[in-house]
Amino acid sequence: MAELCVHSVLVTGANRGLGLGFVQHFLRMPKPPQWIFATCRDPKGQRAQELQNLAAKHPNLVIIALEVAKPASIKVAAAKVGEHLGDSGLNLLINNAGMVNSKMIDAETFEDMTDTYTTNTTGPLLMGQAFLPLLKKAAHRSPGSGLSCSKAAIVNISSIGGSIASMFGWEMMQVTSYRCSKAALNMLSKCQSLAYKEHGILCVALHPGWVQTDLGGATGHTPPVTVDDSVQGMLKVLSSLSEKETGAFLDWEGQVIPW
Amino acid sequence: MAELCVHSVLVTGANRGLGLGFVQHFLRMPKPPQWIFATCRDPKGQRAQELQNLAAKHPNLVIIALEVAKPASIKVAAAKVGEHLGDSGLNLLINNAGMVNSKMIDAETFEDMTDTYTTNTTGPLLMGQAFLPLLKKAAHRSPGSGLSCSKAAIVNISSIGGSIASMFGWEMMQVTSYRCSKAALNMLSKCQSLAYKEHGILCVALHPGWVQTDLGGATGHTPPVTVDDSVQGMLKVLSSLSEKETGAFLDWEGQVIPW
Repeated sequence: MAELCVHSVLVTGANRGLGLGFVQHFLRMPKPPQWIFATCRDPKGQRAQELQNLAAKHPNLVIIALEVAKPASIKVAAAKVGEHLGDSGLNLLINNAGMVNSKMIDAETFEDMTDTYTTNTTGPLLMGQAFLPLLKKAAHRSPGSGLSCSKAAIVNISSIGGSIASMFGWEMMQVTSYRCSKAALNMLSKCQSLAYKEHGILCVALHPGWVQTDLGGATGHTPPVTVDDSVQGMLKVLSSLSEKETGAFLDWEGQVIPW
Repeated sequence: MAELCVHSVLVTGANRGLGLGFVQHFLRMPKPPQWIFATCRDPKGQRAQELQNLAAKHPNLVIIALEVAKPASIKVAAAKVGEHLGDSGLNLLINNAGMVNSKMIDAETFEDMTDTYTTNTTGPLLMGQAFLPLLKKAAHRSPGSGLSCSKAAIVNISSIGGSIASMFGWEMMQVTSYRCSKAALNMLSKCQSLAYKEHGILCVALHPGWVQTDLGGATGHTPPVTVDDSVQGMLKVLSSLSEKETGAFLDWEGQVIPW
């Protein structure tokens, strides 16, 4: 299986958890991307310290302020990324930023529903729109006719929690607002795959596994999968995708998850 | 197949389209419900004229102001319904109110996503929460141990547009914000079915068919199904449901729709 080989990648929510894991793995690749855009809400803050340390050592890592819940912030970030990239376009957009409220169904509020949907679903839609010109540019410049993550792709980090068919973990955590937002994100991924196929852009929803992150630990249990294993698995899956898999919902080991 | 037989029912978005159709069918039943609560945003307005005419003739029809996108409005409405019902509880809650923006994916805005989700998904969650005490009361007073729509049920009017597996009508209408909200509504229905089963409440998501309503006509095509046929079909389906079907996603003819 070919190693994922991209000129440029952008990861949201990159200051911790899976997002930071993606950045670290890209930096460690034998042939790392020429541009790694790591976005987070507050690049100067204490919670972005690890990202700042990495950026000090790696000139190909650029930290950019971005709040996926704020349309204006997305537009400013897209313009900045465009300036860095010039004519080369963006190969890979990883919509990783996400949130969860650990609540029972009857404790969910209007605000829980709205905030979770805005971050987990509306954000990835607006990111796709804002970065579409850069993704199209990368697809256009890449040789060959098929789709691949090395060419141009939107990767939405979803969750098996969004699988209506499986209802994984319901007894342990109901998280209705989260499940609804992730089912909607899966639908969004499918819509993006159908709309953007003609532009040469692959779109996929990934379940990272039940991972040892703040979010994964919100269950009160210790998740079985490390960030390292999850990211390594997902990158392997991404490297294997072609036009056959655009619009799919896959886990970090490449298994199809039912909707 | 037994006729649906309920003491009380509440229908949201009841001033037109499918909502009005439900009210008319309930009024025409050989043994109509003792209480039909028809809710809409502006009961005094011109757009509720037909509902007002019906209420003038039928003392068992009560029109109640309710905006499903406003939590405070839901609470006030639930209190009013509770006053009418006294100890008897509510048998059937039909979350019918919905909205759609006919847009291509790249024209969808932050506001489209938020507004559509609030009305189509968050509204039904909050309705379920607010009317839960009344639904539980009805379930408790009803004889027998199984689940049924005559006992106590939440019916969410969804759409095949929310089926990620089918992506029905994509070439005709993309309506990404609508599809995302309905996929999320399907997830919500499943969550409600798991959470409320122990209270004796059946929960189901229904696709009404492609119906001759303002919403169905938003495609620019003439839909094949009349409001009458759709409502009659859905009522027949509802009358046939038992605990085996709670959490299902069915169309107006009783066929299972894939998630």
